[in-house]
Amino acid sequence: MGLDEVSQQPHDRLAAFLAADMLAVNVLIRERMASEHAPRIPQVTAHLVEAGGKRLRPLLTLAAARLCGYGGPFHVHLAATVEFIHTATLLHDDVVDESSRRRGRPTANLLWDNKSSVLVGDYLFARSFQLMVEPGNLRVLDILANASASIAEGEVLQLTAAQDLATTEAIYLQVVRGKTAALFSAATEVGGVIAGAPADQVKALFTYGDALGVAFQIVDDLLDYGGVAATIGKDVGDDFRERKLTLPVIKAVAKADAEERAFWVRVIEKGHQAEGDLEQAQALLARHGALQAARVDALHWAATARDALAVLPAHPLRTMLEDLADFVVERIR
Amino acid sequence: MGLDEVSQQPHDRLAAFLAADMLAVNVLIRERMASEHAPRIPQVTAHLVEAGGKRLRPLLTLAAARLCGYGGPFHVHLAATVEFIHTATLLHDDVVDESSRRRGRPTANLLWDNKSSVLVGDYLFARSFQLMVEPGNLRVLDILANASASIAEGEVLQLTAAQDLATTEAIYLQVVRGKTAALFSAATEVGGVIAGAPADQVKALFTYGDALGVAFQIVDDLLDYGGVAATIGKDVGDDFRERKLTLPVIKAVAKADAEERAFWVRVIEKGHQAEGDLEQAQALLARHGALQAARVDALHWAATARDALAVLPAHPLRTMLEDLADFVVERIR
Repeated sequence: MGLDEVSQQPHDRLAAFLAADMLAVNVLIRERMASEHAPRIPQVTAHLVEAGGKRLRPLLTLAAARLCGYGGPFHVHLAATVEFIHTATLLHDDVVDESSRRRGRPTANLLWDNKSSVLVGDYLFARSFQLMVEPGNLRVLDILANASASIAEGEVLQLTAAQDLATTEAIYLQVVRGKTAALFSAATEVGGVIAGAPADQVKALFTYGDALGVAFQIVDDLLDYGGVAATIGKDVGDDFRERKLTLPVIKAVAKADAEERAFWVRVIEKGHQAEGDLEQAQALLARHGALQAARVDALHWAATARDALAVLPAHPLRTMLEDLADFVVERIR
Repeated sequence: MGLDEVSQQPHDRLAAFLAADMLAVNVLIRERMASEHAPRIPQVTAHLVEAGGKRLRPLLTLAAARLCGYGGPFHVHLAATVEFIHTATLLHDDVVDESSRRRGRPTANLLWDNKSSVLVGDYLFARSFQLMVEPGNLRVLDILANASASIAEGEVLQLTAAQDLATTEAIYLQVVRGKTAALFSAATEVGGVIAGAPADQVKALFTYGDALGVAFQIVDDLLDYGGVAATIGKDVGDDFRERKLTLPVIKAVAKADAEERAFWVRVIEKGHQAEGDLEQAQALLARHGALQAARVDALHWAATARDALAVLPAHPLRTMLEDLADFVVERIR
């Protein structure tokens, strides 16, 4: 399939451009998620890894490495590493959130049990560490170990901050930087590092991943309340039902009068939700322009991501990464 | 306190001999389990890390490194690493086993919730990887990453094999090598590696840790059925109630007649347990000499551990490690 035939979405253009590399990543992922001794492991991981996730994070690593002129074999290991870390966090997230569906399929904790999800998640974490050791690059190890700690820290912070109306936008940003952006920025940064790119380019790749991750999460949080305009085919209200204090709600709470505040205390802090409460929440978000304000934030982060790449050489991959930043926020135009 | 004043238990002698190193390990553990952003993390970890565990695994790392003449600072990082990995697995184990008590105190999953235990366990895993990167030694990273994968693999294997009467002693050994011995052997091996010990000594330290870990687990499994002789002050029957197919049961099942087999199918495979079943299980173990046979296995593994150290230089620490191997099985004399 020629490039001109593929869809215009930057993610698909990246996947087509990096098809040979992604093939190697998929082979490595399948090889390393096997377990000689415990057949439950490939059952659980295959269910999730083969479920047709977008493989966005490994694409970021491959793109960053190739954009910086890398010609060695280890960007493949690092791309598989970030996908393993991502998959492990998904398994544990589904236990923590008590989710029953992921990517349109029943979650592993529902198909097997929470025990399997916890332990297979641990196995994938360990596998990711084995993979990241193989390139023999200590700086890469440092970045990925730090990202892993940031992810867990962000998740724990979310757990304690989620239902607390005193949560500020600064705390929200800390959570998002940890649970989402840390792996995006590590994915792009290690691509630059393994390629031996100069410091300013590595820094730009980090900034790109970080800002892209934040934009990505804000968009996700927006869409969970139906987005700025009506969006078709997307379930709304999961965050509301799980009482997650996301950016739109934080913005609406900041402008709430006494009566509105009592509403948020009841539905988020106390979790006493009734028929019609989601609609009431959406009405309050609209009244205070909270979704619009969150959209402005997302656009700002996307622009930060795009602009960061200016120091990198002109290259089709650079253009695709820039377009990806725009595309992430396009869903909420 | 002089050495002559300490208890005769080899573990206490190790702790006294390595007191300065252990102090540094404890300082590092306390420093690294902190989290700037998420106060829930030190609450959960302090509850567990400060609960007065024996710190056996970090002592093994320190002892191995010092025994091989190490004079640098990094054995402390590696000792803290193995304790973090151990603590993380305890947090996740308690979720998987639905335990309510650990080291005589309520478990973290009971005090907080399973979510916190899963995520704080992940945080400690990530912290352990940060710590193990710091010595800048790729071989050490390889050993510890492999150990982490083996632990998770052993736990998953246990999950699927636990209630299957077809489980053989070979599978039991695989589970134990993973969930228990892998961290013991990694703890001793990295001590030798960081000290730059010759290959035969590193291999001996690995064999010591592996065999010690297997002996340790067999003894634990034995004591859970009351041990060979009556033992006071130890709760029995946890494994039975959790339907874990441990070594004594595997040995008794192998010799069971049809009626006995029906009993094991009911209480272990089907989990239909009633008053008096634990006593019946103990009677069957006694009838077939299963506890005695498991004790012989444990003594064999302890002897393997002790003998492995012969290639290491004569040293008070070597004597203490040898005595530790004997002590582990002394509980079931």
